[in-house]
Amino acid sequence: MAISVAVAGATGYAGGEILRLLLNHPRYLDGTLSIGALTGNSNAGQSAAVVLPHLPQLADKTIQETTTEILSGHDVVFLGLPHGFSASIGAALPEDTLVLDCAADFRLRSADDWEKYYGSDHAGAWPYGIPEMPGHREQIAAARRIAVPGCFPTGATLAALPAVAAGLIQPALNVVSVTGVSGAGKKANVDLLGSEIMGSLKAYNAAGKHRHTPEMVQNLSEVTDEDVTVSFTPVLAPLPRGILTTITAPLNGDVTEEAARAAYAEFYADEPFMYLLPQGIQPQTQNVVGSNMCHIQVEVDEGTGVLVLTSAIDNLTKGTGGAAVQCMNIALGFEETDGLPRAAVAP
Amino acid sequence: MAISVAVAGATGYAGGEILRLLLNHPRYLDGTLSIGALTGNSNAGQSAAVVLPHLPQLADKTIQETTTEILSGHDVVFLGLPHGFSASIGAALPEDTLVLDCAADFRLRSADDWEKYYGSDHAGAWPYGIPEMPGHREQIAAARRIAVPGCFPTGATLAALPAVAAGLIQPALNVVSVTGVSGAGKKANVDLLGSEIMGSLKAYNAAGKHRHTPEMVQNLSEVTDEDVTVSFTPVLAPLPRGILTTITAPLNGDVTEEAARAAYAEFYADEPFMYLLPQGIQPQTQNVVGSNMCHIQVEVDEGTGVLVLTSAIDNLTKGTGGAAVQCMNIALGFEETDGLPRAAVAP
Amino acid sequence: MAISVAVAGATGYAGGEILRLLLNHPRYLDGTLSIGALTGNSNAGQSAAVVLPHLPQLADKTIQETTTEILSGHDVVFLGLPHGFSASIGAALPEDTLVLDCAADFRLRSADDWEKYYGSDHAGAWPYGIPEMPGHREQIAAARRIAVPGCFPTGATLAALPAVAAGLIQPALNVVSVTGVSGAGKKANVDLLGSEIMGSLKAYNAAGKHRHTPEMVQNLSEVTDEDVTVSFTPVLAPLPRGILTTITAPLNGDVTEEAARAAYAEFYADEPFMYLLPQGIQPQTQNVVGSNMCHIQVEVDEGTGVLVLTSAIDNLTKGTGGAAVQCMNIALGFEETDGLPRAAVAP
Amino acid sequence: MAISVAVAGATGYAGGEILRLLLNHPRYLDGTLSIGALTGNSNAGQSAAVVLPHLPQLADKTIQETTTEILSGHDVVFLGLPHGFSASIGAALPEDTLVLDCAADFRLRSADDWEKYYGSDHAGAWPYGIPEMPGHREQIAAARRIAVPGCFPTGATLAALPAVAAGLIQPALNVVSVTGVSGAGKKANVDLLGSEIMGSLKAYNAAGKHRHTPEMVQNLSEVTDEDVTVSFTPVLAPLPRGILTTITAPLNGDVTEEAARAAYAEFYADEPFMYLLPQGIQPQTQNVVGSNMCHIQVEVDEGTGVLVLTSAIDNLTKGTGGAAVQCMNIALGFEETDGLPRAAVAP
Repeated sequence: MAISVAVAGATGYAGGEILRLLLNHPRYLDGTLSIGALTGNSNAGQSAAVVLPHLPQLADKTIQETTTEILSGHDVVFLGLPHGFSASIGAALPEDTLVLDCAADFRLRSADDWEKYYGSDHAGAWPYGIPEMPGHREQIAAARRIAVPGCFPTGATLAALPAVAAGLIQPALNVVSVTGVSGAGKKANVDLLGSEIMGSLKAYNAAGKHRHTPEMVQNLSEVTDEDVTVSFTPVLAPLPRGILTTITAPLNGDVTEEAARAAYAEFYADEPFMYLLPQGIQPQTQNVVGSNMCHIQVEVDEGTGVLVLTSAIDNLTKGTGGAAVQCMNIALGFEETDGLPRAAVAP
Repeated sequence: MAISVAVAGATGYAGGEILRLLLNHPRYLDGTLSIGALTGNSNAGQSAAVVLPHLPQLADKTIQETTTEILSGHDVVFLGLPHGFSASIGAALPEDTLVLDCAADFRLRSADDWEKYYGSDHAGAWPYGIPEMPGHREQIAAARRIAVPGCFPTGATLAALPAVAAGLIQPALNVVSVTGVSGAGKKANVDLLGSEIMGSLKAYNAAGKHRHTPEMVQNLSEVTDEDVTVSFTPVLAPLPRGILTTITAPLNGDVTEEAARAAYAEFYADEPFMYLLPQGIQPQTQNVVGSNMCHIQVEVDEGTGVLVLTSAIDNLTKGTGGAAVQCMNIALGFEETDGLPRAAVAP
Repeated sequence: MAISVAVAGATGYAGGEILRLLLNHPRYLDGTLSIGALTGNSNAGQSAAVVLPHLPQLADKTIQETTTEILSGHDVVFLGLPHGFSASIGAALPEDTLVLDCAADFRLRSADDWEKYYGSDHAGAWPYGIPEMPGHREQIAAARRIAVPGCFPTGATLAALPAVAAGLIQPALNVVSVTGVSGAGKKANVDLLGSEIMGSLKAYNAAGKHRHTPEMVQNLSEVTDEDVTVSFTPVLAPLPRGILTTITAPLNGDVTEEAARAAYAEFYADEPFMYLLPQGIQPQTQNVVGSNMCHIQVEVDEGTGVLVLTSAIDNLTKGTGGAAVQCMNIALGFEETDGLPRAAVAP
Repeated sequence: MAISVAVAGATGYAGGEILRLLLNHPRYLDGTLSIGALTGNSNAGQSAAVVLPHLPQLADKTIQETTTEILSGHDVVFLGLPHGFSASIGAALPEDTLVLDCAADFRLRSADDWEKYYGSDHAGAWPYGIPEMPGHREQIAAARRIAVPGCFPTGATLAALPAVAAGLIQPALNVVSVTGVSGAGKKANVDLLGSEIMGSLKAYNAAGKHRHTPEMVQNLSEVTDEDVTVSFTPVLAPLPRGILTTITAPLNGDVTEEAARAAYAEFYADEPFMYLLPQGIQPQTQNVVGSNMCHIQVEVDEGTGVLVLTSAIDNLTKGTGGAAVQCMNIALGFEETDGLPRAAVAP
């Protein structure tokens, strides 16, 4: 009998991306997985043919209310919901259901950080879904509850992790992430109108205000004993998908570019979705669109004694929906790479 | 032993799209297909890691010269070459090689049309690769030489075919196709620079000048005895992928929208890649990006007695590379839908 | 004493464009014009520094409620309001105030057309603000009430007027207008989000459903005794500003391209904002961005006996705000071209 | 008799922007300035109607060769040429001609820096055209040779200058500038094609490789005795115009945001083109498009002890052509703000 999968928040961008990946997943195509309930409160009652026209295979389905009852009959539940609501649904689902939460609720282990950045009670912490972090793949394999990471922390963590772990840099990072707008979600907001976005660039929530900052610090702190600081500046750019992250941090003494590259190559030697680009080739978000890859480059700025790290991900794939499916693959014992493209839709 | 596939013009947009689809193709993933030579004259000698960074699985390959010798050792050869060059390579390959030509050389059956629009000698005509046209699927299945259709003719033919076949309209069509810029190829051209394209719209080769015009007339003439005329206006728009085609033509007497929809539903009843949208939902290119789908809408303008047809395709997928892989699937006896997404990368 | 100008709906796109043009207007710079009340209901009470950051000269102003009282103390009032509301405000302003209404309320002379397309009572008709239409410049000069035309009708009318007037074509027009999204206004709407717009094209309100259709018919009917029909299809494209209109219509007998060009050159001989491009050069919206120009091209499709017309305007300038200022210049006896750029912001 | 102005490299983006501004300049409109030779080698002999369609007022002109002879008959010469060629033309023009060079040749005072970054002989240094830098306005007023600054150094210098001058920060700056593509010029280059640019983000010339790095160091070193270091990472984004610069640097002790804002307000108190945004409003490139403004924001990241600076300019206006016209205005004794919009073309 098929493993049934529900997607809560199916009409949002994260939910839609999870469904796109599932519909092309070999375990869905061979009948191992089946797609059950699609929920979404504001669209409840509408035909998927109307609200998910890019997924014509689902045209006969109807969007349902997001309730514990509707979701709990499934073996796997993806949550693409606003934080808070996600925590309440997540907590109410049966223990043996595999729940993958794309909201922030269960990512932070520090209740203080949670309260400072989100202003509400801390719901707790679940195993954190970046399999490329040391020890995490094993935690994910054993878990029925997984916190899918934020899109910015994914790009920044994967770019910085080997350098911090190897002590190449002092862990005082300047992180600037330029992002497409789908990360802001599918909500009616004048600031996100096409007219406001196209032909424009803006920073926002700079100077420590962005909620993804403590998540970056938490991740990098797992691989060093030193205090990690991150000054994070997100920049909104006119494209739908993609995050280009640049990081600078002071080198620890004399580190050559070759040594830095070697540390990265070794750290990610067995990772199917990590790709250290040849010297001289820069990460470009186009080259990861629709794929689950993270492209990385590492450079030494000799004039200033700074290590320069850049990474590119698709915020909806490796940054959300692809990470969720990757974690599902691990937790269900599938091939980790099943249904997760490494080739991108470029141009 | 695996069926070996070569791609000539692998560094162009058509070649890159064919490779993207092959790398996710279930017959490639199970070892039935193997990827052999990748050729591209201006990039010959370069690493695929440098020129195809969006396809990291191919990073160890080197781009080779496009020669008959290099290509002829393969079972399947895709040609993504300039016309003229494509004809000479296509003609020189062994008879039992399956050759899928994405250039225009072998599309037109009329030597006069060819000479008028291309100004060179007619190379002949191969079975024409729109399986959705009556009789074509059978021709493709039996062929070792297939002319992959042009992107504009694909969008216009699929939108208009049922209406012309059923006699709903007088076949005097006004076709306006708004297109992303990847259709113009990956060549250094000031008019195609990002600065010139973004924030701008322009018509070009209007008033009968575009080479895809006779291909549209040829296709539609297959399903009617009347003379077909097409006034075709392409418009270049600021997006990489996608063609949105609008067609108007005078109705033949009283045709209701319901009758028109019924004719479309029947004509495409068994087609996996054709999708007639629910009434009131318009085709949107975003909903087909990266997929092999063609979305269609049919409306009656009662005030003017005109049928209004609209279609959306991804010019690089259903419009070129996807069509090529679909034809390969048919010619090799695979499932026609293998490796061809129906779910799109949206947003 | 300065002529005081108020802008109602100042925080919308039409209002913002009018203000941009006024701030660079030589009669504002020399003190002849002064800018008074800026109104906008949802933003009332907010600082212009917050809601109009692209107009730093106005940073000290506060947005006020849109009321007759606040507006009626001014010599000139621009209305950038939703239709209906615009009619009620427009009707209540003093008779000697120069009122330029950017909404649709007073454009249509036929109450039947109004009721059919807008579903409410007809407010009447004011002199219609396309000075390039025969007789309109004189009407505008004498008026204190001016209906600023719609953006699509402006592009289509200016492209087709000479051909219809000279009888070059049968007035059965197929009009496809590809438009940037600012024409849809600054309202929170999921369908207009950057993620939905970028990388996508869609037709909408096709098959006679768009409200601008009767306005096109009304305009072209002024220069011919024949019945005019327009099948109009708008297409939404990923750019903020610009409308590229393509029109096809059957030629009346043998009309050469030279004769057609001569008719256009003569018709617009004295018009400062009309530019017939050299043969072979196509209108491109980039070349009119921020300017009050309308670029036109005229071609004969000999194969199908069709005249192909294309035009490019900036929908916010010549399509709305520029037209409004042009009408103000005429009505106040200024130089018609004052403050209206002919050079565009390209690229 | 009019002051005659020539533009060398008139068909490039810098040249086109200078012409756009001149055509709307009140001293051009009143006949004080006249536009003479337009030169451009690859387009020499072509009609401006063909190569500058966005400037219809110039349609009767013909592009000439870029030679000293053709240029030297003018009172004012703008050079929008490749570096090297610019130096040779600039050196050969008569001493009393006002020459404004938009290339890099005469910007750097250090021959070592020049040779390291450009690999050729140093041509010397001219007065540097950022009037907002202390003492520069006076130098520009007295000069007949002016080096127009680079676009990235303009955005970074204007953002950082008050903080460095006031000693708010240690002058070890991390600068990330996200830029539209027009800064790369109008040259046929596959990497700059619309298909490669739209939907993509990439860093380039990071880690000290970008030639604008020493120019930033030179500028900031004018206002401090400390050693200035700049780690500069440019990021290419999918828009034509605009640079959004983010800068982080360690605070010097306890600096409050209020103190930092006060320092900025004082430093730029009399500057017509500098605009410190209200707290909470971020610079957005859309709000400066086509204008000569630089919008700035200043924030303190208390968690990391870092000052976060952001600025927005239009790279073709304040970043090149507008700066050039501003310097011309100063050098000719016009009003400095003549012909330089403060209101932007948004959206």
